[in-house]
This record gives sequence, C-alpha cells and structure tokens, in this order.
Amino acid sequence: MLMTSEQYEESLRKLNLVVYMFGEQIKNVVDNPIIRPSMNAVAKTYEMAHISEFEDVMTAVSHISGERINRFTHIHQNTEDLVKKTKMGRLLGAHTGCCFQRCVGMDALNALSIITYDIDKKFDSDYYQRFLKYLSYVQVNDLTCDGAMTDPKGDRSLPPHLQADADMYLHIVEQNADGIIVRGAKAHQTGAVNSHEIIVMPTIAMREEDKDYAVSFALPSDAKGIIYIMGRQSCDTRKCENSKIDVGNVLFGGHEALVVFDNVFVPWERVFMCREYEFSGSLVEKFASYHRQSYACKVGVGDVLIGAAQTIAEYNGVQKASHIKDKIIEMNHLNETLYCGSIACAAEGQPEPSGTYCVNTLLANISKQNVTRFPYEIARLAQDIAGGLMVTLPSEADFKSPETGKWLEKYLKGNSVISTENRMRILRLIENLTLGTAAVGYLTESMHGAGSPQAQRVMISRLADVKEKQCYAKNICGIQEN
Amino acid sequence: MLMTSEQYEESLRKLNLVVYMFGEQIKNVVDNPIIRPSMNAVAKTYEMAHISEFEDVMTAVSHISGERINRFTHIHQNTEDLVKKTKMGRLLGAHTGCCFQRCVGMDALNALSIITYDIDKKFDSDYYQRFLKYLSYVQVNDLTCDGAMTDPKGDRSLPPHLQADADMYLHIVEQNADGIIVRGAKAHQTGAVNSHEIIVMPTIAMREEDKDYAVSFALPSDAKGIIYIMGRQSCDTRKCENSKIDVGNVLFGGHEALVVFDNVFVPWERVFMCREYEFSGSLVEKFASYHRQSYACKVGVGDVLIGAAQTIAEYNGVQKASHIKDKIIEMNHLNETLYCGSIACAAEGQPEPSGTYCVNTLLANISKQNVTRFPYEIARLAQDIAGGLMVTLPSEADFKSPETGKWLEKYLKGNSVISTENRMRILRLIENLTLGTAAVGYLTESMHGAGSPQAQRVMISRLADVKEKQCYAKNICGIQEN
Amino acid sequence: MLMTSEQYEESLRKLNLVVYMFGEQIKNVVDNPIIRPSMNAVAKTYEMAHISEFEDVMTAVSHISGERINRFTHIHQNTEDLVKKTKMGRLLGAHTGCCFQRCVGMDALNALSIITYDIDKKFDSDYYQRFLKYLSYVQVNDLTCDGAMTDPKGDRSLPPHLQADADMYLHIVEQNADGIIVRGAKAHQTGAVNSHEIIVMPTIAMREEDKDYAVSFALPSDAKGIIYIMGRQSCDTRKCENSKIDVGNVLFGGHEALVVFDNVFVPWERVFMCREYEFSGSLVEKFASYHRQSYACKVGVGDVLIGAAQTIAEYNGVQKASHIKDKIIEMNHLNETLYCGSIACAAEGQPEPSGTYCVNTLLANISKQNVTRFPYEIARLAQDIAGGLMVTLPSEADFKSPETGKWLEKYLKGNSVISTENRMRILRLIENLTLGTAAVGYLTESMHGAGSPQAQRVMISRLADVKEKQCYAKNICGIQEN
Amino acid sequence: MLMTSEQYEESLRKLNLVVYMFGEQIKNVVDNPIIRPSMNAVAKTYEMAHISEFEDVMTAVSHISGERINRFTHIHQNTEDLVKKTKMGRLLGAHTGCCFQRCVGMDALNALSIITYDIDKKFDSDYYQRFLKYLSYVQVNDLTCDGAMTDPKGDRSLPPHLQADADMYLHIVEQNADGIIVRGAKAHQTGAVNSHEIIVMPTIAMREEDKDYAVSFALPSDAKGIIYIMGRQSCDTRKCENSKIDVGNVLFGGHEALVVFDNVFVPWERVFMCREYEFSGSLVEKFASYHRQSYACKVGVGDVLIGAAQTIAEYNGVQKASHIKDKIIEMNHLNETLYCGSIACAAEGQPEPSGTYCVNTLLANISKQNVTRFPYEIARLAQDIAGGLMVTLPSEADFKSPETGKWLEKYLKGNSVISTENRMRILRLIENLTLGTAAVGYLTESMHGAGSPQAQRVMISRLADVKEKQCYAKNICGIQEN
Repeated sequence: MLMTSEQYEESLRKLNLVVYMFGEQIKNVVDNPIIRPSMNAVAKTYEMAHISEFEDVMTAVSHISGERINRFTHIHQNTEDLVKKTKMGRLLGAHTGCCFQRCVGMDALNALSIITYDIDKKFDSDYYQRFLKYLSYVQVNDLTCDGAMTDPKGDRSLPPHLQADADMYLHIVEQNADGIIVRGAKAHQTGAVNSHEIIVMPTIAMREEDKDYAVSFALPSDAKGIIYIMGRQSCDTRKCENSKIDVGNVLFGGHEALVVFDNVFVPWERVFMCREYEFSGSLVEKFASYHRQSYACKVGVGDVLIGAAQTIAEYNGVQKASHIKDKIIEMNHLNETLYCGSIACAAEGQPEPSGTYCVNTLLANISKQNVTRFPYEIARLAQDIAGGLMVTLPSEADFKSPETGKWLEKYLKGNSVISTENRMRILRLIENLTLGTAAVGYLTESMHGAGSPQAQRVMISRLADVKEKQCYAKNICGIQEN
Repeated sequence: MLMTSEQYEESLRKLNLVVYMFGEQIKNVVDNPIIRPSMNAVAKTYEMAHISEFEDVMTAVSHISGERINRFTHIHQNTEDLVKKTKMGRLLGAHTGCCFQRCVGMDALNALSIITYDIDKKFDSDYYQRFLKYLSYVQVNDLTCDGAMTDPKGDRSLPPHLQADADMYLHIVEQNADGIIVRGAKAHQTGAVNSHEIIVMPTIAMREEDKDYAVSFALPSDAKGIIYIMGRQSCDTRKCENSKIDVGNVLFGGHEALVVFDNVFVPWERVFMCREYEFSGSLVEKFASYHRQSYACKVGVGDVLIGAAQTIAEYNGVQKASHIKDKIIEMNHLNETLYCGSIACAAEGQPEPSGTYCVNTLLANISKQNVTRFPYEIARLAQDIAGGLMVTLPSEADFKSPETGKWLEKYLKGNSVISTENRMRILRLIENLTLGTAAVGYLTESMHGAGSPQAQRVMISRLADVKEKQCYAKNICGIQEN
Repeated sequence: MLMTSEQYEESLRKLNLVVYMFGEQIKNVVDNPIIRPSMNAVAKTYEMAHISEFEDVMTAVSHISGERINRFTHIHQNTEDLVKKTKMGRLLGAHTGCCFQRCVGMDALNALSIITYDIDKKFDSDYYQRFLKYLSYVQVNDLTCDGAMTDPKGDRSLPPHLQADADMYLHIVEQNADGIIVRGAKAHQTGAVNSHEIIVMPTIAMREEDKDYAVSFALPSDAKGIIYIMGRQSCDTRKCENSKIDVGNVLFGGHEALVVFDNVFVPWERVFMCREYEFSGSLVEKFASYHRQSYACKVGVGDVLIGAAQTIAEYNGVQKASHIKDKIIEMNHLNETLYCGSIACAAEGQPEPSGTYCVNTLLANISKQNVTRFPYEIARLAQDIAGGLMVTLPSEADFKSPETGKWLEKYLKGNSVISTENRMRILRLIENLTLGTAAVGYLTESMHGAGSPQAQRVMISRLADVKEKQCYAKNICGIQEN
Repeated sequence: MLMTSEQYEESLRKLNLVVYMFGEQIKNVVDNPIIRPSMNAVAKTYEMAHISEFEDVMTAVSHISGERINRFTHIHQNTEDLVKKTKMGRLLGAHTGCCFQRCVGMDALNALSIITYDIDKKFDSDYYQRFLKYLSYVQVNDLTCDGAMTDPKGDRSLPPHLQADADMYLHIVEQNADGIIVRGAKAHQTGAVNSHEIIVMPTIAMREEDKDYAVSFALPSDAKGIIYIMGRQSCDTRKCENSKIDVGNVLFGGHEALVVFDNVFVPWERVFMCREYEFSGSLVEKFASYHRQSYACKVGVGDVLIGAAQTIAEYNGVQKASHIKDKIIEMNHLNETLYCGSIACAAEGQPEPSGTYCVNTLLANISKQNVTRFPYEIARLAQDIAGGLMVTLPSEADFKSPETGKWLEKYLKGNSVISTENRMRILRLIENLTLGTAAVGYLTESMHGAGSPQAQRVMISRLADVKEKQCYAKNICGIQEN
C-alpha cells in the first residue's frame, strides 16, 4: 500500500507522542508551527510516490510481497536499487530544500536485513524471520521509521559498561518471557516525532563486558516510556512569526530530538539483537555505510542553493559577469562531485549473504567525507553571489508597513522587471540554507550526520589497501624485499 | 575627552533617531533587546580606552589638540598608528565576539583627511579646514561616527545619472547659500543607530555626468529627514527570549540598517565634497583600503571561536585526539595569516600629502581577500570540533523545566567535572558565531564588508605590477624583445 | 587474437617510422633508451591481457566477431564495459606508474563508432560500414592506435580557415578517386611512435567555411609523409645514464610527439568523415567525454604514489606519527574521489543510436575537472612525507663510488633494517612522479590532457541544468513568475 | 668592504674544496656546468649591493665598524632591518628565479649573535666576544657563509646519544688546549660549495646526555676533513647540454650537498657553543625563526613565475580570457599573502638581550607554513596557463636542426608577432620552475627548508595562546569556572 501524504498526516495525528519543546509538552505535534514544516517534508516522500514521473525512483517492488511499495521501505535487491536510492535522495532534497528525514529508517531496515541474517547463521537464532515479519508490517503500512543509533556517550574515553552513569548508552535492564526492558537515550534523532516507528541499534562495536548494550529492536514511536525533547535550530522561531517570506523555505524544514527511553518494554518479536555483541560493530558499519550514501540528499539541497544563487544573480543583474558564471560552475562542479561519490558507491555495491545489496563501503566513506567539506564551500559561494543584502534585509513586516514599505520598495529594487518581494524571497532562501534552519541540515548535519569526518577517515585508513599500493611502488622502482 | 561607556549610553538616549524595525517605529532604541547588544559592543570601545593595560592601543594623542583621544577618532600619523589600529581591532573583536561597529567612522575620517586636502590642492577650496574643524569636534566629544558609503545601486550596469530612479545613488537635489539638500539612501549601515554622527561618502568613481552624486558630508545622526530601517539577522529574535544561554553571546552583538535621506539639509560647514567628481574614486579607494585593513577585528572574533572550539573539545573530553589538536592548529594558522595581512599593510603604510598615513593598498586588498575565505573554513572546523549537539541542543527553557531538565542534565553530560550548563553555553556560542547573529558579522560581513571579493580582485589586478614581473621572467629565460 | 608483449615489440620493429629527437633521426626507435620505457608501458597492456586474474578487466568479447579481444580495441556494449574500462585504466596505472598511452585509440574508436553511424543516418553515407571494417582489422590484429585530435591552433581567436597559415589545423588539400590528401600537424601525441595506427579527428566544432578541416581518417603510423618529432620531458636524459636507481621508474615511462602530416594520402576506405562539418563538434565531444573518463589511469598512478609515500614513511621510521597517517588518508581520500568520478560517469552511461554506450558527459567532465586538481595535492603531500632528501640525494654513481659510497651508506641510513639503496629507490620514484618524467603524465597531462580545465568548465556550464534548479529554488521560497 | 661579483668568483677559485659529484671528484668547482649557475646566483648578491638603486635594501651599516656592509653579513638592529631583509629576499628571488643560497649564513650569524650572548650571561663565558670577532672578519671580507644545521638523524625516534651509529648527529669526539675535533655530517646544505665559511649548529633541543652534540662553530669551507657530495636535482644534466633555451633559467640555479666532517679540527676562537646543551633548543628556534622569514625569497621566485605565466598567456593570445586573468590574480593573491607573512613577522620583531632584533616567532612560523602550500598552487596555476606544450615541446636541438626546425617554426607558432624561440624560452622557464631544477627550490625546498610543515605546526601549537582565547570565549558566553 502506498499512503498518500494526507493519510500520512492523519496517521500521525493518531499517535500519542510525549513531546517537549521550550520546556513545555506539546499537545498537537502535527500542527505545531516549528514542527509542521518537518512533517511536510516527510509527507513529500509519500506524495511523490504517487506521481508517475517519479514512480521508478520513488517506489520499488517488494521482494517479500511482490507489491509496489515506497522505496523507503524497500530492501535493495541489486545495484540498480542502490543507484535509485541515490537518485531518490537527490530528487527529494531538490523538492524540499531540506532534510526529509525518512532515509534513516530505510538504512536501518537494510542494515538489519543483513545482520539479523548473519547472526542467525552463527547462532542458529531466528532474528531474520522476526525481522522479515516486521519489515512486511512496515511495507504493507508504508510506515516512516526513525533509525536510532547515536547514544549520548558521556565520557568518550570509556566503554559503555565503565561509564559513571550506566545509562549513557542504551541497554537492557531486564529480561523476561515476554521481552526486554531497556533504558537510555538516543541523541540527534532526525525526524523522530514524524515517525510511526523507532528502530534502535547500538552505536559502537562492543566487547563481551558491554553485551547488555548490544541490543537492537523496533517500537511504535508512542510506546510507553519514550519521551521526545525537541532540539532547537538557528532561526527556529521565525516559523512562528506567520511569515511567508522571512522563513525562507515556505513549506519545508527538518528537526532533531533527544529521545529518552525510560524503562521501556520491548516484546520479543520486536527484538533483533539481544547481547550478540560480536555483531554490534558490523551493524554499525553497515548502517553507517548506507547512511553515508544517503547524503546524496545534500546534492539535491545543493541544487536548490545553486538555483537560488543563479536567481539572485539575475535579480541583481550580474548574471553575465564572468566571475559570477565561474562561481556557479564551481558550485555545480562541487555538487556533482558529491553526486559522483554517492552514485559510485551504489554502482559498486555487492550482495551480502542475506541477498541484500550493500554499497561499497570505502567509496561510501569517501563520498560522505566530501559531504563534510563541499556544502560549506558551496554555501560560501552562494553568499558571495547573494551580496550583503542577504544579512541586512529588513523584515517582512517592514515591507508590509505603510511607513517603511515604500522606502524598501524604492531602494531595494534590483533588476527593474523583478519585484522587490521576489528578490527578498530568494535572499531569505539563501539565508535559510546558509545560516538559518536549513543550514543546520545542509551544513552541520552534513558534517556530523552518519558519523563525523574523523569516523570516515578511520574507515578510509582501514579500507584503502595501502599494502597493495606499496607492492606496486616497490615493483616499479625495483625494490626487492624478503 | 574620553567618554565612559555610561556617558556614551546616556548620550545616545538624548538622540531623536527615527528607527523602524518589524514594521514599527522604536521609541526606546537604546533598550530595545535586539539593538542593545550592538550598543554594548560600541560601548566597549569607550570602556576599554579607560583601562590602563589597553591605553597604548585604545588611545592616541591628537595631532590637532595634543590631547589624549580615543584611537577611533584619531588620524594616523605614522605606521605605528596603523599597526596599533590593527591591534585595536583584534583586541575588541576578542572582547566582544562580534562587530563593534566603530571602525567605519574612523576609516571615513582618515580617508577624508587625505582627500579634502587633495581637493584643496587642486581647486584651492577650503574643505580641509572645514574637515579639521569637524574632526576636532568629533575628537573633543569622543563621538561615534557611522561611515556611510554603499548606495542601493539599482541596476548595476548603469551609472548613477542613468538609473531609472535618480535616487538609487544619494545626490544633491538643491543648493543654496546655507548648504545643500540631499536625497537617497545608504544600505548595510553597520552600527548606524549607535552613532552620533553619520559621514556620507560616494560609493564609486564618477564622471562629470554624475557630478551631483559626488558628495560627501557629515550630519548628526538625528538630523531631520534621516530614517533608519533595521535589517534583521539570523536568530535576531532569540535576544527577545530573555535567554541568558541560548543567545550565545550574553552581552554583545551587531546590527545593520538601511538609512534613508529624505531631502535632508546639510549646512556648508559640514560639506566635504560637492561635485568634485574627479576625487570620488580616490575617496572610495582610500576608505576601502583603510576599511579592508580594519577586518583585523575578525582575527579577534576568530580568537573567540578558537577558544570556544578548544573549550568544547575539553568539555567533550577529546582535546588530546591528534585530529582535534591539528584542527585547532589549522584554525590558529588561518587566523594568524589574516593577522599577518592586516599588520603587513599597516607596517608598509606611507604618508599622503596631507600627512595622514595610509595603508599599503595592495596588501590591504590581499588581506581582505583572505578574510572572504578563511573565517568560513575556521567556522567549518569549529563545527567539526563542536559535534552535532551544537544544532540539536534543546532550549534553555527545557533545561530549566522540571519535566525535561533532569533528562538533559543526565544525558547531555560530557566530561563529568563540567556542568551541563557550561557545555550548553559554549555550544550556543559556537552556534552564534557560525550560524547565528554573530555569523552575520563573522562570515557574511567578512565576505561583503569593505567590498565584495571581486572588488579586491580588481584592485589586485590593477596594483600587482605584472609588467615588472614579466621583465624578471624574460631576463631570466633570455628573451630579448624590442 | 591477443598479441603477446613480445609480439607487440616485434611488430613495432617492422614499422618504418620517421622519428626525430634532439635534432637527429632515430634509426632504432624501439631500443632508444628514452623511448623504450614508453614502449614497455604499452607492452604491459598486451602482457596483462594474458594473465587470467586480469582477463575480465583487460579483455572483452567483440560485438563483431564474438572473439575475445583486448579491451583497448573494444566498443563498449553496456555500462559494465564502461565500468571495466575505468578499472582497466586504474589497474594499468598502478602496474606501470605512468601513462600507458593506449586509451586514446580506444576512445577514438568508440567515438567514431557513434559518429560515423550518426553521419550515415543524416547523409545516407557509408562511413559506419567502413569504420566497422577498419575496427575489425584493429581487433583481429590487436593493434595499438594513436587517437590524434589536437591541432597546433595558431592564433586561438581565429577559426581554421582564417588562420594566417592554413595548415594550423589539419585539412584536406586534395581529393581524387582514390582518396584524399591531407596536410597539417597534431600536437602532444601520446604514445605516437608506439602505435601501429594513427586515427585523426578534428579538434573543434566547425562551420561550413571550415569544412575542409572537418576530416577524420586512419592510417598506418608509418604512412608516407608522416613525421614524428619527439617532445622532451623533465629528466628525460636520465634514462640514458644506464641508471637503475636514479631513473625512479625502472621500466616504464611515457612520451609525446608532434606529428607532421606532409601531404599525406588517405585511401577512401580509411576516411571516416570528409567535410561533414556539422558532426565535427559531436565527434570532439564524444571523444573528449570518453577520454575524460580515461583519466582513471591517474588513480592507478596515485596508488603508486601513495604506496611510495607509505614506504618512505616506514623507511624514515615515521609511519606512526599521526600527521603522517592523516596525510596518507588524505591522499587516499583524494585518489578515491577521482575514482568515484570515473566510475560514476561510466555507471550512468547511456546507449547511442549505434548501440555504443557512452559515458554520462556531465559526470565525465566533473571527473576530469577533479583530475586537474587532486593529483597536484597528492603530489604535494607525497613530497611532504618524503622529506627533503628527495631533492638532495646524491647520484647512483656516488653510491657506487668507493670514495663517496661509504659516506652515503653511513649517513643516509634511515630505519636501520632498510638498505640505503632501497631508501634511495623509493625517493627516486617519488621524485620521478612529482618532478621527473612521470610528473609530466601525472601532473601536467592531468591538467591538459583530454582538454584543459576551462574546457571542462564550459561543458559543466552547458550541461548542468541550472534552469531546473532555479525552479526548485523558486518553488521553495514561494516565487511565482510568469 | 663590498666584494664585487668578480672578486667573489675569484675568491672561490682559491678554495681547495673536496667536492664529489656523479661518483668523481670535481677539480674545477667554479666552472662545473652543473654548479656554476648556483655560483652565479650567489654572485648576484654581491653584484646588486653595488647598484645604487638597491643599496638601501642590499647593504647596511655595521653596528661594529660603522662601515657599509652587505646586508647578508649584517646583524639586525631594528625592525626596519628585518623588513629590509624580507625585501632583499624577494628582490633577489625575482632577479635570479632560484635559491641564491646566502640567507642561511645570515640567519646563522644573527641566531648566534643572540645565543652566544645568552650563554655568556648564564655561564660567564666569552662566546659573544669570540663571535663578534668572527663576525667582524666576515663583514670586513664580505664572506658567504653556509649555515649548517640539519644532521642525518638516523632513527628519528632516538636521541643523538642512543643512535646505533654515534655519528648520525655531528659531535665533539676530542678536545684539547687548541680546540675540538668533530665528526658527523650535515645534510641538504644549500650553496655549500659556493661558501667561504661553514657555520655549524646543532639541529634539535638536547638534554645532558647529548651534550657532546651541543656544539656550534665556524670553519673555512675548505678546512681539512670536510668533504662535499653534491645532491642531484631534477633536470640537472640539462645544464651540461650547452643549451641556452632548454635549460629554462639561462644563468642561475641552486644546489644542495651532503657535507661530511671526517674528524675535523676547530680552534677555540671559532667555537661558539661547546656542550651548553641548555641553549641548543634556543639556537635552533632562533635560527629557524629567522630562516622561516627568509622564505620571502619564494615571493620573488613567484614574481618570476607570475611574469612567465602572463607572458605565455600573451604569446598564446589568451591573456584577455577572463579565466586567465582570474588565475593571474589568484597567483598574485597567493604570492602577496606570502609576502604579508614575511613582512608581518619582521615588523613585529623584538630586541633580544644582545640587542639583536629577532622576528616574531609565531608569525614567522605562520609565514613559512603558507610557503609549504601556496607555491604548489601557484605552480599548478602556471601550468594551467602555460598549456600542455610545456611538457611536449621538442628540444632546442630540434629547433636548430634543418630537418625538423622548419616544422617546429611553422607549427609551434602562437601569437604571430612572437618568435617561436621566445615562446619556447618562456615555456622552458615555466618547466624549470615547476618541474625542473628550480622546482627543487621553489616547491620541495619551500616544503622542507627551515623545517618541514609539521615543525611549524608544533610551534604554532606552542605559541598560539589558546588559554587566553578560551578566556575570551568563556567570558562572552557567560561561563564562570573556578
């Protein structure tokens, strides 16, 4: 079944989420002005699946049911699926200009489809069947899942079991015939309160001493004991101003939340890893690889920023200046270099024992590493092209005021055929993407999401076969060693 | 006389400025929560002049009166003065973490001290004496001046007199025995409503057809017909939340305004250029050179950001990781490279005919060009070190709420000896400097203030003696030409 | 038939090439010490096709004959072929540490397989059949072809027919029943004197006035009237020193030559374009796209340089220093980013009307653009790791001399278990790749081969759909235009 | 006394240096074709001191004798001296296009003028008087000194006294009434065989166990037991081809040598440090700071390369293309940024107890760190502008040969008013500076001379006052700590 965006919104209204923001509990999550734009962005993943032009990219045929499903609930069956995932990310980034939040659940499902199978092979357990049953439920109901990995971590020099507070990593605190009880928290949870389900995974490789922390499971997002505390973003309250211009992005946005698990019960059929600490590292690595590929979405957001830069150049009447043209080229060059990375790791994907296709891990890390750099330079170039007015523009209210509106109308005119309002809108969009709410996603999230830059460098160091390269070098210069 | 910061604040209260923000006129400018931090930053330039440790940098001896004056009202008498100006900028940037706004007036005064003298030499006029009298008034009263150069410009491919709206550049509309009447606007006016005086200058080189636009003068900031419309900044309204933490910078900030001149009268003794279009270009160039040097302030803001990055690294417990140390080194390296540029153009300064020392123009442009690049990279590295929590941190209200405060206290603990509140404060400061109100000054203003990057490149192209370099090259490889 | 490397060498001995170097004609081209390493590199493309481990990459099944052929003579039938081409380039780069020269002919064949078909469609000509016959000859005999595109160009601001010297672009000077006679020259011809065939193509898009310049054909490399003048390279004569160490790369190298066509006759069956100027631009674009992909070879050379850097780090005993490890990671990161580009443009390839698969043109340009940058940074990092000894190392003769050898043996010892000779060898290899003969290929050729950086930027500007991006941006910020 | 360049050359002929190259002893060092260009470059430091236009920069007044002396023998008496040193370096770099070698001795003299004084203050020794006497001898005779610091170092993880071979650092092996006997070697000695004197200094900070290694002294360069083994450079033997074009730089070059001290006697009056290990680190730091400033010479070489790039752009007829102009601007920008660093550390210099002025150590390190980066980018841009012909150009002999000369004359013509020979000359100069002998100095020496990049980063880390920056940050965001 493919939900419509309206159905999606309705389904959210039925949830009983415990959400706090600015120190107060939010009764109506869906209509909260700060949260709603992020809901709209997720809704776009439903809406576009119904548009025939995008069907090939936005949907897939379930390998379980044979039914057409939203690609966000699909398990990749070949490299074409992986490549389409990259294209879907770019497409949605371009249509929303922000983080649409739903990829993290897709990446969690795919990672679990590999690791539950691998655990079973080793321990003769039945996690994979449990997982498939759960997957089927997600596919049939076209659910949005939050993939929850990052623990607060406390003192980073200590493993989970040696932390002063045992809850700094989420862990099993009790176990009985029906299931387990867990405690802890997951930080930086993108799109958490727009999700039907939350899929928890461990955040690091573990040893036996940490086995209570080696736990993976899925729960409805409104399960008892789950508490959401919204993170705030640059310019977040501008969404409450009833602005249609100053907000920059009229409809869409993103959000992150801290999710607290206050002694939450998980029934066995929802548990996908329970103390198999040997597989904690692989699960992290698979999820991280998929999720590093997912940053193709930033190419789509980059498309929006390039389009905005070109537009303001035209509005300012400088689009023919050679240095402006060259900066647009450079923005495109960097943006497409990011695209190359995401495409390449997909095209070089390989099947895992479970049949799921996984991206090439080295190239996924290469790709994400560039994502931690290039959006910042693209944003810098966009600010260069935009001009200083981007940060000195008076407010929408000033434009609408009879006293000041006339002056702004008169003096903030650029190219005479363009309305001052439109010039203002595009400047506010660039502000949004480079300093405002969307900069959180386009810049800082590009830096730290799916692992901070150093995490990728550690992986590159591990995966680049330098010994082989040394053989090449030694052969070529005639070094013979024993 | 050296005003105290209290006297400065009082002096502002006496002004009758016409200021609009969010579509409404502001009655009490000084205490407006969005404006006040910018007033505090200017006040710091008064406060520090009274601290003996900083006297040498913050003050100078007037070449007119022989009295000790605030350096911001001083005319540079030698290269030492220029070097101290650089150091004053860095010092104040470090103490405020933002734009302290007062340099633009200092740069305007120095530029006028050169050009009024040069005009007189050519036309046997008496602008220089007028100017000196005005300067004396500024020095004796320790005034803050806004240096107003940038016109709205309209269609950038047309000169002033061919614009569809003749007011797109500020111009003389009438002249009589008492003075002149001017109309137009100046955009992006930093610190405008914290100034006692506004010094207007033309914004481009001009030809005879544009002579009505070749005008420079000074007025009290509350002269009749001057209207201020405040620009808004990323996260501006956070200052209205009564927050002490989320605001990032507890005391200081900056602001820009659009200043409209609605048929404003200027008496002759306040007019410093009146249709001498041949000197319009030189005035722009001198002001721009001084002002490009002034971006030494960003080195001070960079000091704050480096300090913040080191602090969060310690709070996160990762300060000994080699990649963290290396990033701090890189931040310092880039920041000190900026400092080298500002010092070098000062140390290589030369006297003008009036006796005023001007910076080396080529090196001032080199310096500013780097300012359009390195703060962005320093900010990127700061975000890298900060970690993702910088953009997912719940609000100050959540920390103080009994329902959510306990969870945040528990789960957002880093290094156990550091209070969660302090960790939050330093993260908010990094947010402030890289995405929030201060990012407007540290990033976008670094890009466009004192001329956008391409303006510097044009100057570099003009000033670098490539023909001489070609002689070197040809000699060395044995090319003989006629 | 797959030739062996020995057969290849023998086949070259049978050619009667007219080759000049250092002002003299070379009688024995194959054994000339400066040329021979480049012959060895081409020979490697024959040798490796016989090694079963590499068969899948190095060979393909001809779509004409169904026979297994060397991939360098293959027409790409699907994206897998394109991806394997990328892998073949990297593989050979890693095995030779230099330019192996044979890709240019492969790219010419593939481009012609598209364009001859397209011309026929429009003009009902029979170029495609001619071409297939010729292709079959190349495949059956496993020939190496030089793809000759770049004309001297003279005054770059003028089209071919307006040049002072009509020969600055190669052109048809006569035509008769048997064929055509051509005059002109092709510059920078990589591997020219190691080729059996030379395939000529025009170098720019043309208009009707230039139609005599719109010509493509193939000739045996020793056809009457073809003259080769060898270009010299940095450190070229070091190959004549009988050195085994100082030469850096013991066996392999590259070369370029200026090829003069002094009224050369081409029979009709070898003519593939004759005045169809409308297709000149497409032929250039197809060839350029393929050839921009081909720079995957530099990833292989990068592998060698990374291997060399790691090795000298170990020999110097500094391989565990964190900054060294980080530099190796950065080298790998940049190198794999290049790989992503070449893989991505291959994986996103599409069939042309003739059935030949062509790479994604935009991504091929993106990929090449990065090749004009990253090898320089990789080389810089390699020099950083190598240490200054790389450029102050005494000669091989000094090492072997009884008088000086003892001092070098004693004082140039690094890690005590490593022989000084091996340390010397690896340093010489890094010198070779960053300053010496191989730097010509790894750096300057990466800059200018397959089009200089600006050529790619023009293509990026043309191919990046900025208008679509503007639609995204305008939708998102609510701009409605007519 | 100021020697003329002729007198300098004659003085060298009188030396009895033991010099080896290519495994053989060189009888006539001065006229050896590989060495002579480096002698010419040093000679330029003598020649230019006699040209009145350059007197102010090239000479100074001795603080000992009050006589006018060559600045290379001067002890800096104020910041003006330091600034002029920077200008002298740039000037000579621009006039020679290479390393002129003489700064290292100047830096050694200045460092010793500080440290010998400091040692005396602590130990009541008389090194400073010895040094002044020696300095006077150098000044009166206008000598060129080699400043010899870098030891071979062997296993870098071990201090001198724990090396397997005790000679890996130069040390005192005997001491008697007349003086000391030393053994060891100094690597990478720039201009060694063009020097009258060699001034030895230790290469690292030392502890008591290493005290025999804490030794500094000066000797005539032809003292008994000193052996020079010449390092080879990229394209070195091209100088032996009797070429006037292919050599790129017609007159000038550089050289480095390994200098072996085979039980060399030093009389007491020439000993400036003898086991005062506590001062070893300071001597290294002072010398390194001065020498990092000295890399201003690369700005001069950069001037040559920029001039060459502009010239080839004109010869190719592309000088008006906007991307070419922009690349020239970027080259200038980077080059002048380097200049700013060297000027700034000089202008911010401070007096030492001995009265000698020393550069600002932090800024000197900042400056040198940029030197390890920007010349590589300038070189890359030069290659971009030059075009591929730079590396495919046939030899000078081909141009002169009747058989091939006509073809080259015809086909390698660019702009028609420029002779092909001149085009060739400028291309060869760019090759020389980016790949050839001069690239050794402009690139690799910029990387490793005066300490490799990591050495500067360690110093930046030590000297940047991050604690103070943390205070700024904490104050601003309201953190109060105990």
